Amino acid sequence: MRFKRYHTPGTAPGTLTSPPVDSPSARLRLLRYSARDFEDRTLDSVAECPAPGETDEQIWLQVNGHPDAALLQQLGERYGLHELALEDVLNTGQRPKLETYDDQLFMVLGLPVIRDGHLHVMQISLFVGVGFLICFCPEAEDPFEPVRHRARPPNNGRVRSRGVDYLLYALLDLVVDSAFPVLEQTGDRIEVLEEQLLDKPSRTILSDIHALRRELVLLRHVLWPQREVVASLMRSDLALIEEHTGLYLRDCYDHAVQVLELQESYREMSASLLDVYLSSVSHHTNEVMRVLTVIATIFIPLTFIVGIYGMNFANEQSPWAMPELYWYYGYPVVWGVMIAVVAGLLWYFRRRDWF
Amino acid sequence: MRFKRYHTPGTAPGTLTSPPVDSPSARLRLLRYSARDFEDRTLDSVAECPAPGETDEQIWLQVNGHPDAALLQQLGERYGLHELALEDVLNTGQRPKLETYDDQLFMVLGLPVIRDGHLHVMQISLFVGVGFLICFCPEAEDPFEPVRHRARPPNNGRVRSRGVDYLLYALLDLVVDSAFPVLEQTGDRIEVLEEQLLDKPSRTILSDIHALRRELVLLRHVLWPQREVVASLMRSDLALIEEHTGLYLRDCYDHAVQVLELQESYREMSASLLDVYLSSVSHHTNEVMRVLTVIATIFIPLTFIVGIYGMNFANEQSPWAMPELYWYYGYPVVWGVMIAVVAGLLWYFRRRDWF
Amino acid sequence: MRFKRYHTPGTAPGTLTSPPVDSPSARLRLLRYSARDFEDRTLDSVAECPAPGETDEQIWLQVNGHPDAALLQQLGERYGLHELALEDVLNTGQRPKLETYDDQLFMVLGLPVIRDGHLHVMQISLFVGVGFLICFCPEAEDPFEPVRHRARPPNNGRVRSRGVDYLLYALLDLVVDSAFPVLEQTGDRIEVLEEQLLDKPSRTILSDIHALRRELVLLRHVLWPQREVVASLMRSDLALIEEHTGLYLRDCYDHAVQVLELQESYREMSASLLDVYLSSVSHHTNEVMRVLTVIATIFIPLTFIVGIYGMNFANEQSPWAMPELYWYYGYPVVWGVMIAVVAGLLWYFRRRDWF
Amino acid sequence: MRFKRYHTPGTAPGTLTSPPVDSPSARLRLLRYSARDFEDRTLDSVAECPAPGETDEQIWLQVNGHPDAALLQQLGERYGLHELALEDVLNTGQRPKLETYDDQLFMVLGLPVIRDGHLHVMQISLFVGVGFLICFCPEAEDPFEPVRHRARPPNNGRVRSRGVDYLLYALLDLVVDSAFPVLEQTGDRIEVLEEQLLDKPSRTILSDIHALRRELVLLRHVLWPQREVVASLMRSDLALIEEHTGLYLRDCYDHAVQVLELQESYREMSASLLDVYLSSVSHHTNEVMRVLTVIATIFIPLTFIVGIYGMNFANEQSPWAMPELYWYYGYPVVWGVMIAVVAGLLWYFRRRDWF
Amino acid sequence: MRFKRYHTPGTAPGTLTSPPVDSPSARLRLLRYSARDFEDRTLDSVAECPAPGETDEQIWLQVNGHPDAALLQQLGERYGLHELALEDVLNTGQRPKLETYDDQLFMVLGLPVIRDGHLHVMQISLFVGVGFLICFCPEAEDPFEPVRHRARPPNNGRVRSRGVDYLLYALLDLVVDSAFPVLEQTGDRIEVLEEQLLDKPSRTILSDIHALRRELVLLRHVLWPQREVVASLMRSDLALIEEHTGLYLRDCYDHAVQVLELQESYREMSASLLDVYLSSVSHHTNEVMRVLTVIATIFIPLTFIVGIYGMNFANEQSPWAMPELYWYYGYPVVWGVMIAVVAGLLWYFRRRDWF
Repeated sequence: MRFKRYHTPGTAPGTLTSPPVDSPSARLRLLRYSARDFEDRTLDSVAECPAPGETDEQIWLQVNGHPDAALLQQLGERYGLHELALEDVLNTGQRPKLETYDDQLFMVLGLPVIRDGHLHVMQISLFVGVGFLICFCPEAEDPFEPVRHRARPPNNGRVRSRGVDYLLYALLDLVVDSAFPVLEQTGDRIEVLEEQLLDKPSRTILSDIHALRRELVLLRHVLWPQREVVASLMRSDLALIEEHTGLYLRDCYDHAVQVLELQESYREMSASLLDVYLSSVSHHTNEVMRVLTVIATIFIPLTFIVGIYGMNFANEQSPWAMPELYWYYGYPVVWGVMIAVVAGLLWYFRRRDWF
Repeated sequence: MRFKRYHTPGTAPGTLTSPPVDSPSARLRLLRYSARDFEDRTLDSVAECPAPGETDEQIWLQVNGHPDAALLQQLGERYGLHELALEDVLNTGQRPKLETYDDQLFMVLGLPVIRDGHLHVMQISLFVGVGFLICFCPEAEDPFEPVRHRARPPNNGRVRSRGVDYLLYALLDLVVDSAFPVLEQTGDRIEVLEEQLLDKPSRTILSDIHALRRELVLLRHVLWPQREVVASLMRSDLALIEEHTGLYLRDCYDHAVQVLELQESYREMSASLLDVYLSSVSHHTNEVMRVLTVIATIFIPLTFIVGIYGMNFANEQSPWAMPELYWYYGYPVVWGVMIAVVAGLLWYFRRRDWF
Repeated sequence: MRFKRYHTPGTAPGTLTSPPVDSPSARLRLLRYSARDFEDRTLDSVAECPAPGETDEQIWLQVNGHPDAALLQQLGERYGLHELALEDVLNTGQRPKLETYDDQLFMVLGLPVIRDGHLHVMQISLFVGVGFLICFCPEAEDPFEPVRHRARPPNNGRVRSRGVDYLLYALLDLVVDSAFPVLEQTGDRIEVLEEQLLDKPSRTILSDIHALRRELVLLRHVLWPQREVVASLMRSDLALIEEHTGLYLRDCYDHAVQVLELQESYREMSASLLDVYLSSVSHHTNEVMRVLTVIATIFIPLTFIVGIYGMNFANEQSPWAMPELYWYYGYPVVWGVMIAVVAGLLWYFRRRDWF
Repeated sequence: MRFKRYHTPGTAPGTLTSPPVDSPSARLRLLRYSARDFEDRTLDSVAECPAPGETDEQIWLQVNGHPDAALLQQLGERYGLHELALEDVLNTGQRPKLETYDDQLFMVLGLPVIRDGHLHVMQISLFVGVGFLICFCPEAEDPFEPVRHRARPPNNGRVRSRGVDYLLYALLDLVVDSAFPVLEQTGDRIEVLEEQLLDKPSRTILSDIHALRRELVLLRHVLWPQREVVASLMRSDLALIEEHTGLYLRDCYDHAVQVLELQESYREMSASLLDVYLSSVSHHTNEVMRVLTVIATIFIPLTFIVGIYGMNFANEQSPWAMPELYWYYGYPVVWGVMIAVVAGLLWYFRRRDWF
Repeated sequence: MRFKRYHTPGTAPGTLTSPPVDSPSARLRLLRYSARDFEDRTLDSVAECPAPGETDEQIWLQVNGHPDAALLQQLGERYGLHELALEDVLNTGQRPKLETYDDQLFMVLGLPVIRDGHLHVMQISLFVGVGFLICFCPEAEDPFEPVRHRARPPNNGRVRSRGVDYLLYALLDLVVDSAFPVLEQTGDRIEVLEEQLLDKPSRTILSDIHALRRELVLLRHVLWPQREVVASLMRSDLALIEEHTGLYLRDCYDHAVQVLELQESYREMSASLLDVYLSSVSHHTNEVMRVLTVIATIFIPLTFIVGIYGMNFANEQSPWAMPELYWYYGYPVVWGVMIAVVAGLLWYFRRRDWF
């Protein structure tokens, strides 16, 4: 669980701090498209970015990797992005939110991914203005290739003939839907844990359940506000969002709700798993105890009996000194007594339903 | 717990993917009815479907089995169904919802059924337009035969003299009421588990309780939004829903609430069951422990005593070497000591209320 | 926990099914009253019922026992009762609700009673129209005798000088207040369980606590909507309810809230009881374990020591063969060692605070 | 936990029943005050009470002890108090509420007190009209002396120069603030329990925790509606409450919220205490088990070994009959084997981190 | 957990009581600033404070340490602060709140700090009027140095060119952000506890978890209302707050929400920790039990067998007296039987999967 990046309390708002040097430097990728044209290339510097309003085509600027403060500042100046929003791009770990700055839209989203069998959340930051969309993704490879693929000739998908609002919907939809495969894997993990648990409760299961719960708590704190983001986008009457995009956003909202409910179900199930673990361990202990008790309570009296006749009282001086030892049938009688004891105890245990 | 069907994230909205080939192909069944006429037949292709507005009669088109993409597309074109709604028909596992597209209504419902002793939810998708209702059911046999039966001569029920809005109510009512027998069986399962549990807590009960909780969590995620669907239909001022159908929808809403509350009660009871299981196992362990402790603490000291006189110190060289062995009443005295020890321990256990 | 009566899913709405024949047949009782007159008699058939508007007096028609379908139909026709409401009268187990049909009011209430030490809820159904009130009670003897008593000469209580709305209030108040003695008994049961629990946790307590929780869950599902019924009656601006009855309804609402809060408190306490049970059993097990451990760990080493000198190595061939047996003070030394072991263990246990 | 006093269900509303005879009879105390004058005396009968409007001074009538029905009826007639409100004064155990009757205000408050180390709630009932305030307190000594003290010469506090609305605020503030010392003591009890619990979990702690939880549940059912009472008084636009009293009520509301949150914190902590108890007992059991297991598993094999050489097979007839007994170093070798067994087991336990 | 300071119930509102004498006396520090000038000095008495309106510069008066009643009264008179607000400054332990008095704003905030490894909350009280801000901090050193540093030449930060509303934002932001490092440390504590817990559950962990939960409960009761304070400040249309400060407050609100959600996540995780503890201890007990049971059930029968042949029945008088002792292969046969018993038991345990 990586903690949210934050500034030292008391830092001036809008301060941009470059990330530590070991992060990969950010790369810029530009998509210019209209119903007729399509251009997809990598840029070397912000200076190559087309200024907003410079072209009739729609602009999708993708920034992959952790951007440094300088790059952000240049982008901010060129496209008029607000400093507080840029600060949120740098300090990853933000909760999903939608903010409006005059005629621009700033959106933070969380894209859940499974890495090394564990759940992580990648922060996606989006700026949308008239005719342009800037998307920040902290990974070297962004997950939006399927959208580019749909737009690219010869597919020429619907995204080409519409504005950046439909592009925004396409990206948002991909982010929301990314939770489905992640949750499916989580569901599989729960089923595996359940089977192991009922089969043989072990120590590693305990830490697996705990890790699962932690990841689901983390996931909820992303999915919950993300649903709110979609809802407020759907309900907003922003000029940027054209009316016919509304139906698509409603579909996207529907998915966001389904994702949240699946997560809630899994959270409940994983909470229940710990109860089952505890019950299962208790049950095991009880069974082990019962075997011990049956064995011990059968043999302890027998051991006592044979102990008696191991005593060295036998001598000829006294008629009271273990005369049984000298009886003709002494030894068989002792065996008889012991068999009777065993039979009695077995009958008692059987009646109490112990085995 | 089958996971919801979903498209790979990034797929274009409205993409229709045919289900895997092993599903039974869908069959079309047409009901045309008015107060005077009634016709019930099976169709071979979408082309045979009457176009909306072509007839004065009400049309109920039932599609049983998983429809393939082509069939859906044809139906979509003929009746003007929205592509996003058709996508939801294919991707079963949707949560219940009500959506309006211009003058049409799209509804997803969940019909709970018990199969192999476990709870499943069947997705029912409904399109309602002026004069027609299209209903999709993924099973070969749809559960709406009772409604057809009421409409069919000689019954000629109320459904015949009213519009598709009343038919919609009739189907909705059937879906909502289907939860009653399912919940009654769930209630029976809980009672059986309770009895077994208090009688003898075993391993299989644990997995039964867990399965029950999982099914109830699943059921809640269907019943909760279904209640919302009925409520919003009841409150809506759609032209499609005539006023006199309102009272019937209120009755249906009432049932939806009752169903939800029953489910909530069962959820609470099943949560309580696990606590009872844990308590019951703990109680068993405690009882087993008590028997072991009583037996062991009685015989352990006795075994020690008889062990003493099994020592081979006895010899004539020393007056300190176990002179007790040569006492006249040595052996009876040892028995006396042992009986006193047993009596003392029994008194102690009795006082502590251990048996 | 009797399950709610329900129709087979798909039955036409408003279908009236007679109850199974072993139920007592319903009896009709008529009260006609005004400030001057009072008449209380048993009717043989619906035909004897005065039609609404036929008289200036107020009419209270009480139907005790399970009515059959025919009786309901006749009443429905005479007083214009809606078929959906009549269906709810037959299918007992409804949740409390308030419904308005044109100028009539239909109300379902739940009257909690204790029978055989367990909680049951009796469904009371009420129709109120201009000048008449019809009340259905599934028991042979209805619980409303105190209200009749207040109205009957020579008491001539306030109910006589007011309309059916005040009568409705009087019946409603009785139903709401009936929960007080029931909850008081529940409180007593909880206190008895608590005492037994802390004294000696036994198996029957476990099933008693579970039964209690189940009954309280059931009760909540009656009291919660009942409060809503009173609230919506209080807030309604129905012509049937005169203004001066409002203050009385506010008082009744107040009681409904108190009843609900008491029930919530008891629910919390009963949930806490199971925790206490579990803790108490664990504590017992721990104590039993401690006694076993003290006894066993003291005697097991001693038994080992005496076992050593029970070995038959003693012979004259070797000076290494248990020479201790031939020491002059061998036996007392062994006793000394054993006493030292016991003293050491006791000191250790005392330090660990084990007894 | 004393159960709320209630009338038999079906009793006519407004019926006043005198309390059982062993309650102390109520005493009347009158305060008449204005900015200039102050009079504080005990009254013998209601007849001595000044009628409302008879004087320009403010009247505070304090009724201490359980009033009988006759007294209430006289007061009700003189000051025009509503019968339903008077019924609530008699049936103590009401939840806090605020009711308005025409130009009067009726308020029920709960004053928490600690008595014999346990939490109790005293019902304070208040009537406020133009120029008078009547306060009922079921105890012989009312807790409002500090307010009288502030009003009495030579203090002549602010209460003297203002109307009964400020007096109402002063009493309300005292009732709300009374929860602070009570909660402080509760906090101390929790800390004591925590220390004992982690030190040595015993049986009495269990019942103490349970009692604490019960009292906090009870307290919440008083503090929650009490906050509502203050809030609705603060927001009300009653003619009785002058504007400048508003700021003071806001302060009082603030305290009511703080009190409620403290109570919630304690409730959570006490719920957590039971978990800690259970964990602590489990931990103890585990430790005891470990000691038993270490001791038993070390000595049981040793006892077996010495048992072997206690067998009487030794004879000269067979070379197979325990030749070890006749070995020269037989006895030391057995000791060597036993020491090796102990060392091996100790190494095993150490590796498993058992001691 | 220090309890909130409160007055004896019944004390007149606005009473100012000096804190106990051992508190450090409060020190006054004045910041006067405008875009051009900046002055930072320590004051000896309230008389040196510039009166509001006396200067065009903004005034920030910082009071460090517990102020005495006299100082508060002087400040109150000079700046027109309300007595109820001053009372809240003295009685620290208030929950965060925002109150408006005519043209002034009074704010109570809670600044979380870690001291000796435990969480504490420091009350910050703020008065804001036209041109001045007075801030009370109970510590000798206030935490607002970073804000002063940004304002001080040569930094001349944005705070200098704006009014006290921006200063208010800067302080509020620092208080809200202070929770981040505190929560990060809490997250670290949870991770350490988790690792220890799964490694080896010990007694101290139990009390650590309990302390953690208590601190998080405490923290929530600060962070929750603090979020409300920021929200109501953001939404307020107070003349004091200029419009351009709104965006910054929105950013601050965003942080307040993130802080609250982190705290909620940690609360859930710490609740889960106790479950894991219990499960882990149960698992340990189960393992210990299994070892004991395996060892005991293997050796107990063996000890019984060797006990048999330790009996002294052997004599020549009877052919029934342990003839086995005289068999040629008697001793090896006994060993064979014992090895068979061990093998059988090991097979049984292996089949039950016990080791």
